[in-house]
Amino acid sequence: VVRRYDTVSFLSDYGTDDEFVGVVKAVLRDLAPHAAVIDLTHGIPPFDVRAGSLALARAIQYVPSGVVLAVVDPGVGTARRPVAVEVAGGEGVLIGPDNGLLAPAVALAGGAERAVVLANPEHRLPSMGTTFDGRDVFAPAAAALCNGVDLAELGPSVEPDGLLPGVVPLSRREGDRIVGEVLWVDRYGNCQLNVGPDEIEGWGERVRVTIDGTDRSARRVTSFAALPPATPGLLVDSSGLVAVVMDRSSAARDLGLTTGDTVVLSSLDDGDEPAVTTAVHLQPRR
Amino acid sequence: VVRRYDTVSFLSDYGTDDEFVGVVKAVLRDLAPHAAVIDLTHGIPPFDVRAGSLALARAIQYVPSGVVLAVVDPGVGTARRPVAVEVAGGEGVLIGPDNGLLAPAVALAGGAERAVVLANPEHRLPSMGTTFDGRDVFAPAAAALCNGVDLAELGPSVEPDGLLPGVVPLSRREGDRIVGEVLWVDRYGNCQLNVGPDEIEGWGERVRVTIDGTDRSARRVTSFAALPPATPGLLVDSSGLVAVVMDRSSAARDLGLTTGDTVVLSSLDDGDEPAVTTAVHLQPRR
Amino acid sequence: VVRRYDTVSFLSDYGTDDEFVGVVKAVLRDLAPHAAVIDLTHGIPPFDVRAGSLALARAIQYVPSGVVLAVVDPGVGTARRPVAVEVAGGEGVLIGPDNGLLAPAVALAGGAERAVVLANPEHRLPSMGTTFDGRDVFAPAAAALCNGVDLAELGPSVEPDGLLPGVVPLSRREGDRIVGEVLWVDRYGNCQLNVGPDEIEGWGERVRVTIDGTDRSARRVTSFAALPPATPGLLVDSSGLVAVVMDRSSAARDLGLTTGDTVVLSSLDDGDEPAVTTAVHLQPRR
Repeated sequence: VVRRYDTVSFLSDYGTDDEFVGVVKAVLRDLAPHAAVIDLTHGIPPFDVRAGSLALARAIQYVPSGVVLAVVDPGVGTARRPVAVEVAGGEGVLIGPDNGLLAPAVALAGGAERAVVLANPEHRLPSMGTTFDGRDVFAPAAAALCNGVDLAELGPSVEPDGLLPGVVPLSRREGDRIVGEVLWVDRYGNCQLNVGPDEIEGWGERVRVTIDGTDRSARRVTSFAALPPATPGLLVDSSGLVAVVMDRSSAARDLGLTTGDTVVLSSLDDGDEPAVTTAVHLQPRR
Repeated sequence: VVRRYDTVSFLSDYGTDDEFVGVVKAVLRDLAPHAAVIDLTHGIPPFDVRAGSLALARAIQYVPSGVVLAVVDPGVGTARRPVAVEVAGGEGVLIGPDNGLLAPAVALAGGAERAVVLANPEHRLPSMGTTFDGRDVFAPAAAALCNGVDLAELGPSVEPDGLLPGVVPLSRREGDRIVGEVLWVDRYGNCQLNVGPDEIEGWGERVRVTIDGTDRSARRVTSFAALPPATPGLLVDSSGLVAVVMDRSSAARDLGLTTGDTVVLSSLDDGDEPAVTTAVHLQPRR
Repeated sequence: VVRRYDTVSFLSDYGTDDEFVGVVKAVLRDLAPHAAVIDLTHGIPPFDVRAGSLALARAIQYVPSGVVLAVVDPGVGTARRPVAVEVAGGEGVLIGPDNGLLAPAVALAGGAERAVVLANPEHRLPSMGTTFDGRDVFAPAAAALCNGVDLAELGPSVEPDGLLPGVVPLSRREGDRIVGEVLWVDRYGNCQLNVGPDEIEGWGERVRVTIDGTDRSARRVTSFAALPPATPGLLVDSSGLVAVVMDRSSAARDLGLTTGDTVVLSSLDDGDEPAVTTAVHLQPRR
């Protein structure tokens, strides 16, 4: 059964200061005027495939049926393949470069069922240069799918197993400690870790958070406002992962954290005097 | 009469570097595909309820009939109530946290007629965490209203008088002087004051503007271009308020002004030699 | 034949931190609810008419039939005229200030066929101030055209020849050298020049790039990835112009280039030892 989609969810590292996003949307409007475009974000740092793949993974379960167009593509113009990947019995197709960007979202959507390389020149725009595949390759393919063109017509099929996997760092257990990593710092300075709530289940209300050799006592909370001022907290965030947070302040700034940093968690016994070193600008409640 | 809305006007402090806005719009598209979303702005500074309430107030008279979704919500996850407020005989419903954010816009739209707390779990998404009410509470409520669900079904009604009021600072008169405050600095550096044109009616072409103890002579103009270079002006801006401006330059930067700063206005007699102190980088016409 | 348009492509220097863009779109939605709005970009630097005109020119060939609304308008409120310009047998109408902003795009679309000044008060909003023509003049005119109002009803016609021309700097030949200028630095730091690929046709693989007295050897490539690390390249970009680029790095930052800077190109004979001075942080392959 050939589907006709009416939504394109669009993520990129194009930013919005240039007209890149606008031109891609102009092409979509021109070729598939019935399709609505949802901008997931275009604020992925330039060339940061990992950040893009994580943002897409966080969003994917909320994305409506249809086409997902994702472009973070430092290898544009090289041999890396532009692909379209069908998931969930055709409920959705993810389009983008085969560089790992799509992989976590594809996995969360149940895995790739069909995949093709976007090689059919009938569904490309003639390019003046070689550097804007979003406009010339990905948008026309997305529009074609919205218009009912079957995936197979976009180019030769590839084995889903042959697609480049994504790289999502896993936390690891070292004795009683969990060694995690900051996956994402959001606008508010919340630091999402690659640690699930199950990994700290059974721990007490306070958790030792070790960053760059400094120990701090963080409180486990279910809302920002439950935190006293200048006190770090651990909160299960809206993606279901453990995040280091502050109330109405940026944990990233106050604790000196950025994406990729290591954060070590260990349990603090509630009765014990915690051997906790505290940065001067923090005033944890004891 | 139950209305079915087809526009959601959306304002937040989410920024656009993360996927927050995109996910809210994905949820809206999924639940109410017929509704168009107008992004009023997502650039409200994080947690700045006052700035959000003022931006919404400036925009509200231009917003089409339908749902207004506004999220600046430092208290997410606390006892502050998520609410929906009906105005103008059902022409519009404003949805957001009951923290004063909606209040000025509600007042400008004629006042609240009905209000409910968004407590009905049937019109919420199951939440993985407790921190993304835009996605899990507000967007589903907006979508439900777009789909013709009556306000009363979203949760228990609350007295409109019980909603938290907004805080809009008023200017005050001290003798012949008007003590105002910068409400908003826009992208161009124009500084909107909480002063209406009626408050300076009858004053001459020049007005003494006192900022942090420094007097300057400002010209009253009706366009930026009427100002000589490096000369501050007073202009009735597009919201109908008095703004301190420069021509093709940022008044905020040149005069050292930011949101919340005090600005004192007093009349300069046209015949008098003005006792005006001028900053070195300004060259007012005498 | 009167046309009824259903797309408004919108470019401005409004930014998205304020609600300017949102209010214009709210007005469009209110007056012409059937019309879709494509945001080309709102990140044009404030007042930078040239940058806006170049972005519009780069985008115009991809813009769908309909109305183009462009606002970069330092002269708002002055005698500069708000205009609507019909092109391509009525396929499109460009609306904006008559300050050169529209001119390059109009030329690329085949030239102005009809033009009017937006003077008809029936197709304006009553203005509280004089500073927001996007909301009060341009958006209502765009909506009117979308609703099938004929161009002639928006105001008195003007001779297309009387519209203000755009200023696009031309490169010049000095002996064997081409003296060009940076037209645009994009998010990735690629520096687009006002030089076409025909101007360097027949040159070898390496080109001498002289910036502020410093010579460098740049490689001509067709993809970023063909460049060794820290090596500048010349690439025909997605607009069909020659750009100075680096692979996965910002040429603007690494070479100290910004919009308006002069860049001189000259041919390097492939057999010769190039007399090339190289900045310390660059490691060109020899």
